[in-house]
This record gives sequence, structure tokens and C-alpha cells, in this order.
Amino acid sequence: MARPSLREKIVESGVRTLHERGFAGAGVREITAAAGVPQGCFTNHFRSKEVFGIAVLDRYHERTQAIMDETLRDQRRSAAARLRAYFDAITAWLEAAGWRYGCLVGNLSLETPEHSELLREHLAQVCRSLTASFTEAVRAGQAAGEIRADVDADDAAAFLLASWEGAMMRMKVDRSPLPLEQFKRVIFTTLFMS
Amino acid sequence: MARPSLREKIVESGVRTLHERGFAGAGVREITAAAGVPQGCFTNHFRSKEVFGIAVLDRYHERTQAIMDETLRDQRRSAAARLRAYFDAITAWLEAAGWRYGCLVGNLSLETPEHSELLREHLAQVCRSLTASFTEAVRAGQAAGEIRADVDADDAAAFLLASWEGAMMRMKVDRSPLPLEQFKRVIFTTLFMS
Repeated sequence: MARPSLREKIVESGVRTLHERGFAGAGVREITAAAGVPQGCFTNHFRSKEVFGIAVLDRYHERTQAIMDETLRDQRRSAAARLRAYFDAITAWLEAAGWRYGCLVGNLSLETPEHSELLREHLAQVCRSLTASFTEAVRAGQAAGEIRADVDADDAAAFLLASWEGAMMRMKVDRSPLPLEQFKRVIFTTLFMS
Repeated sequence: MARPSLREKIVESGVRTLHERGFAGAGVREITAAAGVPQGCFTNHFRSKEVFGIAVLDRYHERTQAIMDETLRDQRRSAAARLRAYFDAITAWLEAAGWRYGCLVGNLSLETPEHSELLREHLAQVCRSLTASFTEAVRAGQAAGEIRADVDADDAAAFLLASWEGAMMRMKVDRSPLPLEQFKRVIFTTLFMS
């Protein structure tokens, strides 16, 4: 069996390579070169590029989920404070990358569904899991009278995830934080009680 | 000079090929085969795949803009009716494609910025133009007291475009119209006066 540390190196470096180059845009040679491992290693650890893509997506999801757990699920804070903390934490991530790479989940969502049913189904599952964290925060906000009650919590949660993904898409093209700021200004004015 | 009808065939068929396969995912061989023209034709008409991508994007933009002109800019209707007509017209398009392909502008926005500065700048310009049509409808809605006045019209317009792109992204992964319906339910409840 191959050493786990090599697989780990490929996945870890793969998050960055797929984020920067896209799924079709990153070849196995580029992926292994970026990880500093021999090209032949790849097939020892991944049956296919698709399986590698899923491992990378899971790693990225773990990190996003960790930020969500720290921010959105922090029950000591108000719903507005939780949501703001989450969007601000992701904004800091995006700024560190010079507003260039957007969200790996979003990037793969638009690129891969026609190429891989496995990746599409996995992306749908990751999005369901991310949405669930938003739903919890929205329900808490509605119960506390902070978030308007005339919007269904599941609708609002799905809308928040999709709209934030859309804002990151616009940020990526403009290489500017303005779409993220516009998202926050509109959401915090319209979804919350005035 | 090569016949214009061949270039036209390649661009027309290219909208579909790039929409279905992505930019990196569609090779010149696939593009010309889909257009039913000899592969060698491609370089007679396009200096590079990048230049071809821009021609395809312009064609797609023309079509979207035509729908916007018919719906968002129809000054006989209320702002709510204009926005609803636009989103419903695009929804009919997306349904005809089995909820599979999303929006070409969105797809290219997430895929190409790191590969082509030319395409990135062109995408930014297309998005600015699409946003302008939303801004006009939002301003009309605010002037008529239909849309809440405590949101800046430019913010609301940029937010509408980005959030709709995000909803189409989620639709594409789930192959379901639900994210589009959720977008409409939330927008028409929160952005409009109750």
C-alpha cells in the first residue's frame, strides 16, 4: 500500500490547484508537480481524476464547514451577528487570494455536472449540508424576531447560499470585493426586520 | 476571405457547445464537428480559441439582452411585472434545456478568468451591461413606490444579477427548478414593499 502522506500531499495541494485552474484545466501532471510527488503516484491513490475531485471537494467542504460551525452555529450570538461573522470570515479568505479564485464548490458546480455524474451528485450533497447550517441560523433569527417571518426558512437558507455563491462569481470576474459588499448591504437590509 | 456563413455556423453552434461542455472541455475538433464544418476552418475565422470564446459570448449576450429589452425595459408594466417577466422568460429557456446548462455568462465567469484576461475583461463588460437593465427597472420600481427605497438601486441591481446567477448555479447541480423558485419567492417578498 502506498504511504498515506503522499495521498495527503496530493489532496492538500489539489485544493489549491483545482481552485486556481479548474477541474478540466488542471492535468494530472500539473496536480502531481504542484504536490511535489512523482506523476505515477496519482493512480496509486486515485482510481480516476473524478475520485480525486471528490477527495478535494471533501477537504474543501470540511474547511468551510469548520468556519460555519464557528460562526453560524454559535448560539451565543444573534442571527445577524452569526451570518455577518460567517460572510466576513469567508471574505477574509477571498481577500487573501486577491479576489481571484471564488469558491471551489461554486466553480466545480458550474464546470463539472456535464462531465461527471459522480461529482454532480457529490456537489449536490455538499450544498445540502452547507444549506442546513444556514437554515439553523435563519430559524434562530426568526424565533428571535430578528429575521422577517414572512419568508420560509428553507427558502431563505437556500437563497442565502445561492446568492453568496453568485456574489463570489461576480467578485471573481471583476476581481473586486464590491459584489460581496453589495450582497451584505442588501441582505442585511431586506431579510432582517428594520 | 472565407465565407461569412461558415463563421456564422461555428459561432451559432459554439453557443451550444460551450454551454454544454465548458470552455476548456470543448476542443476545436468538437466545436467544428458540432458545427458541421472542416476542422481547418476554425483558424480561418478565429485567431485563437479565446477570440472564438468572445464571439460566442457576444452572441449569447445579444440574446439575453433582447429578452431584457422585451421584459425589463417595458415601461408600460410595473417593476414587479417586468422583473417577473424576465425571470420567467429565462426560466422557460432553462426548462427547455432540462435544467442542465445554467447560464453561459455564469459558467464562463467561474471557469475562464485565470485562463484568459481577455475573456475575463469581456465578461466583466457583459455583466455591467446586464446590470444596467436591472438598475433601470429597480429605479422605476422605487420611483413608483413598489420597491423599497432603503436599498441603493445600484446595489439592488448588482445583487439581482449575482443572486440569479447563483440560483442558476444551484439549479444546474440539482437539475431542479427549485432554486429558481426559491429565488423568486424571496426576492418578491423582501425587495418589494409589502
